[in-house]
Amino acid sequence: MTTHHFSATHYHITLGSHEPVLQIADGDTVLTTTVDANGMDARGETIAASPNPMTGPFFVEGAEPGDTLIVQLDRITPNRTYGWTRASVAANVVDPDFVPQLPAREKAEWRVDAELENATLISPKTKLREFVVPIKPMLGCFGVAPYDGQAISTATSAEHGGNMDYNDFVEGVTVYFPVFVSGALFFLGDGHAAQGDGEMVGTGIEISMDVQFTVRVLKNKKINLPRGENDEYIFTVGNARPLDQATQHATTEMLRWLQDEYGLDAVSASILFGQCVEYNLGNMFDPAYTMVCKIPKRYLKEFARPSS
Amino acid sequence: MTTHHFSATHYHITLGSHEPVLQIADGDTVLTTTVDANGMDARGETIAASPNPMTGPFFVEGAEPGDTLIVQLDRITPNRTYGWTRASVAANVVDPDFVPQLPAREKAEWRVDAELENATLISPKTKLREFVVPIKPMLGCFGVAPYDGQAISTATSAEHGGNMDYNDFVEGVTVYFPVFVSGALFFLGDGHAAQGDGEMVGTGIEISMDVQFTVRVLKNKKINLPRGENDEYIFTVGNARPLDQATQHATTEMLRWLQDEYGLDAVSASILFGQCVEYNLGNMFDPAYTMVCKIPKRYLKEFARPSS
Amino acid sequence: MTTHHFSATHYHITLGSHEPVLQIADGDTVLTTTVDANGMDARGETIAASPNPMTGPFFVEGAEPGDTLIVQLDRITPNRTYGWTRASVAANVVDPDFVPQLPAREKAEWRVDAELENATLISPKTKLREFVVPIKPMLGCFGVAPYDGQAISTATSAEHGGNMDYNDFVEGVTVYFPVFVSGALFFLGDGHAAQGDGEMVGTGIEISMDVQFTVRVLKNKKINLPRGENDEYIFTVGNARPLDQATQHATTEMLRWLQDEYGLDAVSASILFGQCVEYNLGNMFDPAYTMVCKIPKRYLKEFARPSS
Amino acid sequence: MTTHHFSATHYHITLGSHEPVLQIADGDTVLTTTVDANGMDARGETIAASPNPMTGPFFVEGAEPGDTLIVQLDRITPNRTYGWTRASVAANVVDPDFVPQLPAREKAEWRVDAELENATLISPKTKLREFVVPIKPMLGCFGVAPYDGQAISTATSAEHGGNMDYNDFVEGVTVYFPVFVSGALFFLGDGHAAQGDGEMVGTGIEISMDVQFTVRVLKNKKINLPRGENDEYIFTVGNARPLDQATQHATTEMLRWLQDEYGLDAVSASILFGQCVEYNLGNMFDPAYTMVCKIPKRYLKEFARPSS
Repeated sequence: MTTHHFSATHYHITLGSHEPVLQIADGDTVLTTTVDANGMDARGETIAASPNPMTGPFFVEGAEPGDTLIVQLDRITPNRTYGWTRASVAANVVDPDFVPQLPAREKAEWRVDAELENATLISPKTKLREFVVPIKPMLGCFGVAPYDGQAISTATSAEHGGNMDYNDFVEGVTVYFPVFVSGALFFLGDGHAAQGDGEMVGTGIEISMDVQFTVRVLKNKKINLPRGENDEYIFTVGNARPLDQATQHATTEMLRWLQDEYGLDAVSASILFGQCVEYNLGNMFDPAYTMVCKIPKRYLKEFARPSS
Repeated sequence: MTTHHFSATHYHITLGSHEPVLQIADGDTVLTTTVDANGMDARGETIAASPNPMTGPFFVEGAEPGDTLIVQLDRITPNRTYGWTRASVAANVVDPDFVPQLPAREKAEWRVDAELENATLISPKTKLREFVVPIKPMLGCFGVAPYDGQAISTATSAEHGGNMDYNDFVEGVTVYFPVFVSGALFFLGDGHAAQGDGEMVGTGIEISMDVQFTVRVLKNKKINLPRGENDEYIFTVGNARPLDQATQHATTEMLRWLQDEYGLDAVSASILFGQCVEYNLGNMFDPAYTMVCKIPKRYLKEFARPSS
Repeated sequence: MTTHHFSATHYHITLGSHEPVLQIADGDTVLTTTVDANGMDARGETIAASPNPMTGPFFVEGAEPGDTLIVQLDRITPNRTYGWTRASVAANVVDPDFVPQLPAREKAEWRVDAELENATLISPKTKLREFVVPIKPMLGCFGVAPYDGQAISTATSAEHGGNMDYNDFVEGVTVYFPVFVSGALFFLGDGHAAQGDGEMVGTGIEISMDVQFTVRVLKNKKINLPRGENDEYIFTVGNARPLDQATQHATTEMLRWLQDEYGLDAVSASILFGQCVEYNLGNMFDPAYTMVCKIPKRYLKEFARPSS
Repeated sequence: MTTHHFSATHYHITLGSHEPVLQIADGDTVLTTTVDANGMDARGETIAASPNPMTGPFFVEGAEPGDTLIVQLDRITPNRTYGWTRASVAANVVDPDFVPQLPAREKAEWRVDAELENATLISPKTKLREFVVPIKPMLGCFGVAPYDGQAISTATSAEHGGNMDYNDFVEGVTVYFPVFVSGALFFLGDGHAAQGDGEMVGTGIEISMDVQFTVRVLKNKKINLPRGENDEYIFTVGNARPLDQATQHATTEMLRWLQDEYGLDAVSASILFGQCVEYNLGNMFDPAYTMVCKIPKRYLKEFARPSS
């Protein structure tokens, strides 16, 4: 179990089978940094091209197609105080006839205080005045290299993860990705100090981050979509457009999970779904939208789950 | 302020301009009962036709088109112990290729204990065994008569409310409906002892209820969609298919609310949206799906809001 | 076989179980008129409320729930020269970011010449100058009373027909409707002198019509959606939003038709579908969109089809 | 103007910035071959990996980002007699509850006669017996390298073209692609001898082809999506899911075309759209669906169009 300190010298705007920047072992921990969605780093310098430049990829030894990569998000901390957001709700999330009433999409600027764990609106000057929100630092875009030699834009998301913009991808969460290529090739970036559900303005509070993560490999464990877990929930992440399909993806993957790992029959899984499932809207802005399907762990205590 | 005790003798399976069963005044309270989605009453007798037979309509004096009807849900309590659900996730919420793997859609039966505030699965016998869930009694279908003389099936929902199947329509919530006809004509029914997000099996735990509600009329206050309010949130309810459009409806109505009643400019409303909005999936089963857009009231304290 | 001449004295803006205006027998023919979408008649007087006021309903003797009503559109002829359209593509059919570039939705006016079979743009004055299009008179909204006592707005469509706005519902076409109530209760109106695919501006060239139609009843023949037939094609009509679901409805109904009436097995029907099917976009404007699934009759000659 | 004869030695399953196989000049013609969707060539040997292995990319001299690549499809001819299709309508194109009634997705085999211009069903043996359809050879997947270094799977389509599966991409058609990288990098493959609208079984009659095409470069001419032209129509191609968004894309691009090249104002373009537009369903099977928006050229004769 080695801990690596990694400083990026270049960034990627696709998740693909790019040259690894570091080779790490199953169980290793990495401390690194990410630049913001526009490529601005901790010092406020723009050092990478948009959108969502990625740190990585990290080659995880032993990860092969058909395995699962586990990424433990140990720490996600803003490493500067300047954050920015778009200042207009996006055109695709309102009724078409309402679009002309949206404001011009100017930027809003925030002062992020990682110690006070809040962000304060600096500009523009609006009726919100000195508006303060609690922060909840998250990664908007992270994932692995996709199959068939694809290189998928960091603007969007799919089975490999990518730009999911889900506001519960915070520190303490364990994320599971299907492995499509040797070494999995893990990428990360696009930190948000905070973000409402759905990323309805097209951004969170965009900021650069210090990130620590730990990887593990589950051999011969095939999953279809990103999955996650925190203290309260297991969850699956559907990335597609429209929301209906994103929801179908997440729902189907959760049914598989309940049946394959928790040993529930189809009727049991359905009954659990009917009364206990929760959904979160990750984003409704990117080319693929994201819906998250969650089952509270308290309902699963009695059901065997293998090693993972 | 009169309190009425109303016992239904007949029920409706559309929300339309039907003969009122009772005339009530602005400020009055009604205690009544609802039968379950299949028309079964407190004694277990099926006394009304499916789907979702409605108690009502109640004619609210003074309510005219262009006004808003406020309905305070004072109390929603199961009035029997027998509840039922479907026992298969619905075909439309999973990936199309997964549909053949769904179980046959048999019924599950529950014993509901209103005092213990839980429900216990009685049949079928599954791996869940004596599965117990907390209850959170709600109304699945309620609303007012729609415009233009329409009579809209209790299977679906729209601007007038109807079969929204949102699991936070519980006691203590205040609901706002646009008034489309003289007297508003309020209907209610389809109680669920509990229901997961999205009503993914097509039912909650269906049960008959004792309901108490209080009405008020906001004169010359035009809203476009159902709105609601509880201790923590204000929320708007989009009813449409697909989810994208339901979300657009809810988002647009919330933007209007923030601008019209809280005095926010378009940029302020957008910024609030960007960092503070939450969404809930009401249902993804009925002909129209339901998405709910919520803003925490703690962010709105400083902004004036008129009389309502 | 009687021929009835019917003059309307009132109109309906929902399709529902309204009082019949005329009782007709299986095989009878009706000559009547329809007003335009705004209720303007042959003389240019507005005599009915919007939207899409309907002539009817006609009670067809012997038609009972579970039967099919056949409506032969014998003749559809504009009975005045003044037609109108909206003059802007609708907001919902363009990319959301493009909406602010749409023109204000003013009206365009046309002179319709039924003998020359064309329409000439009169106003506004645009670069199109004296723009002339061929006419192809059609009914935008027609159908039967829906089930469960619903009264469905003439703004939309569903299993009962309604505002399908499909530009091949022209004279010579035979249309099949499911019968949901005794007498079927047939309504018609919303004539268009011409209309592009999809009704992308929200109207065709709206005009009043002389219409002749003939009804027949197919006893004990249950269909699920409107179907149609002309010299070249059989077709099914899916009415729903989004287009994906409208297409699923039309496709499913055609598969049923091929299997039930033409005796094709599921693989044969699929192969025919794979190489020979055609789709038309009826409308993408109304609350429910319309997609039409067509199979050329030349591929069906060898397959037995019962009496219908 | 050189004519190149190109024989492929390897194939690609993404459209990306791969090493060019041939450098050609503006105005050059290429004669080459394509293998079928499964990589089977003219001799019936499988020489490339699925899905839809591409011949190319061809580097077109002078094509730079911001230009338009014109590809004239001069000739598309099946170069073997064996064709295959899937034999079941796809699960995503029928109502979810109907999915269990679809046949198992076995293959159907066809004998394609390029001289007689038809295809005969060989197996399975069904009620269709010796079913014969006319052929209309087309390219299912072709396009250029996308922007930002993406490598996009040949399973799907986007602004760069790709797997559009539109049955009017036949010989005689001129196709316009936006250029995103130096040399444009043109790929082609996935020939279909015939295909119904929408590719509802997930394939056309898959076959290898002899293809001849000619390229031209329109300098400093920026388009956003694939466009096309044949004797009767100009058309735009929207690739996205769901169909609603594919249609929005195609509609928006056509409005831009009419305004930018034909000099129509927004109202003129809308009026033309309202009465004269036609839509075709390209595919409703691939990850991105395809809708095509068409304007008959006869309505455009009087409007100036620059050099292209």
